[in-house]
Formats: sequence, C-alpha cells, structure tokens
Amino acid sequence: MNEIKIFCPATIANLSCGFDVLGLCLDNVGDEMVIRKSAQKGIRITKIVGADLPLETENNVSGVAGLALLETVTPDFGFEIEIYKNIKAGSGIGSSAASSAGAVFGINALLGYPYETKDLVQFAMQGEKLACGNAHADNVAPALLGGFTLVRSYSPLDIIKIESPSELYATVVHPQIELKTSDARSVLKQTVSLKSAIMQWGNVGGLIAGLYTQDYDLIGRSLHDEIVEPLRSVLIPGFDSIKQAALENGALGSGISGSGPSIFALSKGAATAEKIAKAMCEVYEAINLPYEIHVSKVNSEGVKILSQQ
Amino acid sequence: MNEIKIFCPATIANLSCGFDVLGLCLDNVGDEMVIRKSAQKGIRITKIVGADLPLETENNVSGVAGLALLETVTPDFGFEIEIYKNIKAGSGIGSSAASSAGAVFGINALLGYPYETKDLVQFAMQGEKLACGNAHADNVAPALLGGFTLVRSYSPLDIIKIESPSELYATVVHPQIELKTSDARSVLKQTVSLKSAIMQWGNVGGLIAGLYTQDYDLIGRSLHDEIVEPLRSVLIPGFDSIKQAALENGALGSGISGSGPSIFALSKGAATAEKIAKAMCEVYEAINLPYEIHVSKVNSEGVKILSQQ
Repeated sequence: MNEIKIFCPATIANLSCGFDVLGLCLDNVGDEMVIRKSAQKGIRITKIVGADLPLETENNVSGVAGLALLETVTPDFGFEIEIYKNIKAGSGIGSSAASSAGAVFGINALLGYPYETKDLVQFAMQGEKLACGNAHADNVAPALLGGFTLVRSYSPLDIIKIESPSELYATVVHPQIELKTSDARSVLKQTVSLKSAIMQWGNVGGLIAGLYTQDYDLIGRSLHDEIVEPLRSVLIPGFDSIKQAALENGALGSGISGSGPSIFALSKGAATAEKIAKAMCEVYEAINLPYEIHVSKVNSEGVKILSQQ
Repeated sequence: MNEIKIFCPATIANLSCGFDVLGLCLDNVGDEMVIRKSAQKGIRITKIVGADLPLETENNVSGVAGLALLETVTPDFGFEIEIYKNIKAGSGIGSSAASSAGAVFGINALLGYPYETKDLVQFAMQGEKLACGNAHADNVAPALLGGFTLVRSYSPLDIIKIESPSELYATVVHPQIELKTSDARSVLKQTVSLKSAIMQWGNVGGLIAGLYTQDYDLIGRSLHDEIVEPLRSVLIPGFDSIKQAALENGALGSGISGSGPSIFALSKGAATAEKIAKAMCEVYEAINLPYEIHVSKVNSEGVKILSQQ
C-alpha cells in the first residue's frame, strides 16, 4: 500500500457526567485525509483544504501525532499528508482529535499495521497536547476506536471501548461563536463537594450500565452533569433553551460537547434525532444566532478507510 | 403462607471507587429470620438470638423497616419476627441492613408479594436510618437484590442491579476492634479535588464495564479508591499489611468494607479467595489481633427463602 484515504470522525467528549473520561464517535461528521508514502523521510503536510492551519509538521497536530508514532518505528521512507477539514476548529466536536487520530491511523496502515488501533491513542494524544496544552484522550480515543470510550486511567493509560446501543443517535448544534478553551477552563473549580462527586460517579456507573444493557431510559436518566455543566453552560448563548427544546422533543439527555460551544443531545432513533435538530434550529433562528447542525448515528468503528492503493 | 424462614445476607458497601453507590452481596455470611403472621396487628420482635438488640419494634431496625412497608398496605393481621444474628453489629458488612432487608422481604412474602423485591429497598432504608441516622441504600439494595447494586440516584431512588461475574469471590476479614461510624465519618472531607473525583469516576466506569464483560483484570484495575480509603484506612489496624497480603496472594483488589473495620478483597475463584484468607489471618495473628474471616462467593440472588409454610 502506498496511499490511503480515510474518514476522520468528529467526536463528543466530556459526555455529561463523564467529564474528562467519556467520549463518543460521530458517523457522518468528519474530515478526510490522504496519506501517502514518500521517498523523503519524515512527515510533510502538503495540503490543507477548508481551514487555515499551519503546514509546518511540528506546528500541525497531525504532524506532531505522526512524529510521535515515528519515534517508535524507523521506516526507510516518509509520509505526505493532505487534510480536507470539515470540522471547524473550536467547535467542541474534536477537530484537532480528528486530524491527530487520522494521521496515526493512516501512517500505521502504511507501515503495515505494527500497532493495534487501541495502541495508537498514546500517539494521537500528542497532537492534542499541541492543540490545547493537555495530552487528553477523550476525543482521540473515540475517533480511533469508535463507539463510546472510557478513559479509565491516564497513568497508566487504560482505554475501554464500549459498543454503542444500535439505535443511538446524536444531534449536535454548533452556535457560531468563539469560546476560548482557556475561558471554558477558567470557570472550572479545582475542588468539588463530595456530595456532587458521589452523584456524578453514580451517574457514570448508570450510564455505563445503560450502554451495556442497551437500556435507553437508564442512559437518559444518567446523562446528567452535576459539576461542570452548571459552570460552563453560562458561556454558551441559549444553552438552557437548546437543552430544554431537546428534552421536550424526546432527547434522552443533552449537554455540552467537549468544552463547547457545541451542544449535543442523544436520542433513540433517527426520527427523534431529526426532530430534536429542528427544535434546536428554531431556538437559534429565533435569536438570529448563526449555527451548524449535525445529526449522526454513533459511529461504531472510528476512523474509516475510504480507499487505498 | 403463614410463616417464612429466610437467610439475610451480609453485604459489602462503599466498594472501593464506588463510595456511597456500589455494594455487593455475600453468600454464606448472614443472619436468619423467621417471620410469621399473627392475629394481633402490627409487628412484634419476639426473639433475638446472638446479639443484644432492642426488642421494641420502633427501636429495632427490622421493626422500623417493616412498619415503613406496613404504612402502604393494611392487612387485617400482624407479624412476629424472630432474628438469629450471625453478623456482628459494627463489623462493616451490613448487620443492620441484613435485618432491615430480611424484615421487608419476609413481610412482603407473607402479604402475597404486593411489591417486587426492588421496590422494597425504600422501606428497608428506613431501618438503616434508625441504625445510623442516614437512610442509605448501599447495603440493603445488594442484600435484597443480590449481585452488585449501583445506587445511581437517591432522588428519585434508582437502583441498578448488576450480575456478578460467575467466579467472583470475596474474602472479608473483621478485626475485632470497635470503629464508631461517627469516627469513620468525621475523617471524611466535604470537598474533594476535581482531579481525584475524575479519577474516581473513571474507575467507577471501569468497574461497571468489567462486571458486564466479566473482565476480571479490568475489575481489578478499577478497584481503587482515590478519596475515602486514604482517610479512613488509618483508623483500621494493619490495613496496609492486610491489603498488601491480599494483593500479593492474587486479589483483584482490596479495600474497606462499608465504613470498616472489616477489610475485603475480591478474587477470581475459590482457591485464590482461600489463599488470601490465609494470608490475611497471618497478618493479624502476627500482631495478636483477634479477627473473624469470611470467604464467600458473590451471592447473585440476595435474601433467600429457607422454608415456608
């Protein structure tokens, strides 16, 4: 194989009660990347379409993630990367993670799969470190593995993949505002009440149980964030109205995607997900706030190969 | 049916990372109760063997739990309760919960099962309120339902039963010291760091995932308490040595049972559980501390009917 074209999915991290540990993979929202072998060693970003991002390997998340992988293997050839961005930077649905995950997935494929996909998470995390200063895994893990992923631990890194119930859909609305990650972080408190923490881990347990038993009601009851959402949601215009509209239209639950400003809702079945999308759009149209809307099944496989030659 | 004799199991609450939400049911450690119909309405505790506990209905946890149930149904007969205690009060393996759970289970049976077992938790919790001032469910839920139980939420009460992996065993050692619940509580801090809380709910997620997938290694990796064990374990003589002995002898994980002083270890298979028991005994024998030791499979059904007539 000399060239691979892949779909690099968007992801929802910080899934309600699962702040910092739980994420899921979207199915029809994502970037495309073409990665090919080159005689010249190392990694060159040769084309970026759809976003104004640095071409220098060391300043590009896909370059940095790929270089982290190449520190552990030493092929006698190099790689060229073309990136076709559809996920907007700063949207809160894992734009940098899609590029980081795609780079390591594609390079690993062109190397003849020396690593299992699960073991690529550690390299993709280095792209996240470049993007936000923190090598977090809760977007790159679902982007690579699909379904839901739980980061049980960072030290040592321990990622658990959880299959998604078959009819689970996500609706994501992205209000076109800039929400700086630094602002989303600065509202967090470094301590939480023991009582709230207990409620949160009760819900994490309930959510995981609901996913394994395909109990949509339990998933819905557990999609509740005691700790972060109350602090961050005030930074997102119309958050309460969007969430209320989602729940009134059949959402199992709704919350902030990543660190925002996108807002997600989960639901059972495509029809409900579309109905929720319509209701969310109406909220932002009523206040003349531009938005993008996505409706997607949960993607059970992660990065997908579109073609290879 | 006029009389029922039941086995009322001991339980482990505050299961490592699952402080206040996760408990499990033991199989061969527990009390027995005989409950029979009487012409006189109300509830009378007619006999208590093996413990010095109040006979007055309103001062006995089984009486209070039973009365809570009888507030919702009005039979034209009453109940006599005999309690044969094997679980020591203050041991940390759910002595009051066994009596509370047994009372409501037996009375419900003699009433012709107006309630599903799951719906009895709310009544049994009233016995716990008498025992410790707090209507907690993390012992009575596993005592009634068996297996592992998750208290996802108290408001509204939402209990999730999780089947135990088939080869999961518990070893419990009870050092014969008095550890007041008030002391075990007073060492808790009312706030925790966000970082520790995130690690805790990552582990709760991992533990639940491990239980559903019968992944013993994952169960073991997840049996870790960032928050409460470091504070409470100092109140239990030899805790670190007992835990270390358990882990060195094959335990998946080890921690404080309930609010102590009992210490539990979970393991795969009876042989390992027995080996752990031997190692725990040696630790307490070396320091001349009296103890009781229990080895038990996880009980998948909860309260058991021994006979009925």
